[in-house]
Amino acid sequence: MSVSTGTRGETVPTVPPGNPAVDTADVAALLERGRALSTPVMRAAVDRLAPPMDTVAAYHFGWIDALGRPTEGDSGKAVRPALALISAEAAGAAPEVGIPGAVAVELVHNFSLLHDDLMDGDEQRRHRDTVWKVYGPAQAILVGDALSALANEVLLELGTVEAGRATRRLTTANRKLIDGQAQDISYEHRERVTVEECLEMEGNKTGALLACAASIGAVLAGADDRTADKLEEYGYHLGLAFQAVDDLLGIWGDPDSTGKQTWSDLRQRKKSLPVVAALAAGGPASERLGDLLAADAKSTDFDSFSEAEFAARAALIEEAGGREWTSQEARRQHEIAIGALHDVDLPAHVRDQLTALADFVVVRKR
Amino acid sequence: MSVSTGTRGETVPTVPPGNPAVDTADVAALLERGRALSTPVMRAAVDRLAPPMDTVAAYHFGWIDALGRPTEGDSGKAVRPALALISAEAAGAAPEVGIPGAVAVELVHNFSLLHDDLMDGDEQRRHRDTVWKVYGPAQAILVGDALSALANEVLLELGTVEAGRATRRLTTANRKLIDGQAQDISYEHRERVTVEECLEMEGNKTGALLACAASIGAVLAGADDRTADKLEEYGYHLGLAFQAVDDLLGIWGDPDSTGKQTWSDLRQRKKSLPVVAALAAGGPASERLGDLLAADAKSTDFDSFSEAEFAARAALIEEAGGREWTSQEARRQHEIAIGALHDVDLPAHVRDQLTALADFVVVRKR
Repeated sequence: MSVSTGTRGETVPTVPPGNPAVDTADVAALLERGRALSTPVMRAAVDRLAPPMDTVAAYHFGWIDALGRPTEGDSGKAVRPALALISAEAAGAAPEVGIPGAVAVELVHNFSLLHDDLMDGDEQRRHRDTVWKVYGPAQAILVGDALSALANEVLLELGTVEAGRATRRLTTANRKLIDGQAQDISYEHRERVTVEECLEMEGNKTGALLACAASIGAVLAGADDRTADKLEEYGYHLGLAFQAVDDLLGIWGDPDSTGKQTWSDLRQRKKSLPVVAALAAGGPASERLGDLLAADAKSTDFDSFSEAEFAARAALIEEAGGREWTSQEARRQHEIAIGALHDVDLPAHVRDQLTALADFVVVRKR
Repeated sequence: MSVSTGTRGETVPTVPPGNPAVDTADVAALLERGRALSTPVMRAAVDRLAPPMDTVAAYHFGWIDALGRPTEGDSGKAVRPALALISAEAAGAAPEVGIPGAVAVELVHNFSLLHDDLMDGDEQRRHRDTVWKVYGPAQAILVGDALSALANEVLLELGTVEAGRATRRLTTANRKLIDGQAQDISYEHRERVTVEECLEMEGNKTGALLACAASIGAVLAGADDRTADKLEEYGYHLGLAFQAVDDLLGIWGDPDSTGKQTWSDLRQRKKSLPVVAALAAGGPASERLGDLLAADAKSTDFDSFSEAEFAARAALIEEAGGREWTSQEARRQHEIAIGALHDVDLPAHVRDQLTALADFVVVRKR
C-alpha cells in the first residue's frame, strides 16, 4: 500500500492491491444506473416548484445555464443515488424500490450545498458560479428550503409505514448535516480544533447523509432496523473516508478535476483533517505551521496571498505529517465501512457492489 | 357592523354584534393553554440543537436576550398552538394529543420567520432585533434549517401511522410557505399585482400553516381525511382573515401594539391587500396612488421619506377604498372559515372555541 505525494492529482491513498471487487467499469455502471433511474424522478419533483424556484434549481443541478439554455451539465459524482438503489437490493428488493430514497437524499444533499455555499461565501461549484452568485442570496435560501421540504414530500407521498421510517432517518441525517455546518462555521473562527472535533464535524457533514443513502433503500424495502443500522454504519464510515479524501483534494487536488481553486481549503482557512492533524502532530514543521496560521488569522493581506504562500503552508502540513495521516485515516475508515458489512446477511453481488463503491470513494481524483 | 377608520389602533373590522362565542377571556384562556402545554416541549426540542444554535433559537423565541440572560419575552400570539390543541379535541381526543402537532407547526412557523426576516432585510420583530441582525446571516439560515428539520423529528419520533400523515400535511404546508415567500419577493419587483395574486400569495404564506394547525391535532388523534380537510379549510380561511387584518395593521397599526415601525408595509413597498385593492379600484385616488408608487419605485430618496410622505400614501389607499375593501375581505374570509365548520360533526364546545378564535383573529390589534 503506498501513498503518492507531491504531485497534484495523485494525492489519494491507493486501494489494497489484489482487491477483487475493484473494477472501475463496474463502479461507473453503478453510478450511471443511479443517475439514470433517479434523474427523471428528480426532474419531475423539481418541476413542482413555483417559478422562479424551478429555474434556479434546474441551474443548480446543471440542467440549464444561467440564460436558461439546456446544458449537458456536470451534476456531480452521484454516489448517493447509486448507494440508495444498491441499498434496496441489499434487502432483496428491486433497485427501483430505492428510487424515492435516492431522490430524497439527493434533494437534501443539494439543499445543504445551496445553503452552505451562501454561508461560506463560495462562488464556484462544479466549475460554475454558485446559485447565490447568479440569482442572489434570497433565491439560494428559498430554493434550499424548497428542496429540503420536497425531499420529505417525495418519501411521504408513498403513504407507507416504510416511507415514514425512511423520512425519520432522513430527518435525523438532515439535522446532523446542519449540526456539522454549525460546527464547521464555528471552527473557522477558532485557532485550534482537535482531530476528534474535526472527525465529529465531518461525520455530521458527510457521514450522516451517506449513512442514510446506504440504508434508505433497504428501509423502503421493509428491512429490519438492525440491517438498516448496519448499512448506516457502512455509509457513515464510507462518508468519513470520502471526506478524508475530499480534504486531501481540497489542498492538493488538481483544479481541472475538482472544479475548485488551487489550495481551495487553505484559502478558506478550513480546519480540515490534514491541517488539524499537522497541528496536533508536534515537531518543528507543526509548530512553524501553527505560528503561520495564527499570523494568517490576524493578517489583513490574506486575500491577496500568492500561490507560493499557500504552497508553503501546504508543504508544512505535509512535512508535519498531516497528509500521510489523512491518507491513513481514509484507509482506516474504508476498512471500518467494509467491516460493518460482515455483520449483516447480504446477497453476494450487493456486498461486491458496496465494496467496489467504497474502493472508488477512496481512489477518486475529484 | 362598522369599520372604524382614521385613528391608529382602531383599524380592524368589528365582529358581528351579538355573536355569543365572542368572549375575550375565553380566547385568552385558549391561547394561554396552547402556550403552557406546548412551551415545555418546544424548549426541550430546542435544547437538542448543537451550540450555538440552541442559544440563537432561544433568543429568537424570546427566552433569553442577546447577552444570554433569561427574559420574560413576547413569544407572539400563539394562535397556532391553541388551534392544534383544539384540533385534537375536535376529533374527540384530549388536547394533549395535539401537543407534538402544536410544537411542529410552531417550529415551521419560526423557521419561516428566521429566513423571511433575512431575505426581506427586516431588522425588528416583536420589538427586538432579528436574529440575522444580532448573530449574522449564517446563524439565521442555520437555525431556520434546524427548526424546520426539528419539526419533522418531533412528529416522526412518535412512530405512529398518524404521525406520518401529520408530517405529510405539515410538509405540504411548509412547501406552500416557501412558494408564498417566493411570490412575495417576486411581487416586490413588479409594478402591478392583481388582487387574486395577492390572495394566492397570502393563502400560501399564512393560510397553509394555519390550515395545518387547525387539522394536525385531529390527524394525530386519528381523524379521517374528510374531517381533517374541513378543519384545514377552516384554518386556511382563518389564515386569510388573519392576513387581511395583518395587512391593515401593517399600514395603520399602532407601533406600540404591533412592535413594527409606522407604515411598516409601505416602507417595505409591500404589495399588500389594501395596496393592490386600491390600485385595482380605479378612480382619481387610485390613479394618483399608482403614479406615486411608480415614481417611488424609481426614487433614490425613498429611504429618507418623511412620516408625512407615507401618511399621504396611506390616505390615498384609504380614499381609493383599499382599507374598506380589506376590512370586508377579512369579514368574508371569517365567514367562509366558520362555514367550513358546519360541514363537519364537532363537539359543541369545540365549535364554540374555533368560532371564538376566528372572532379574535379579526378583532386583534397586534
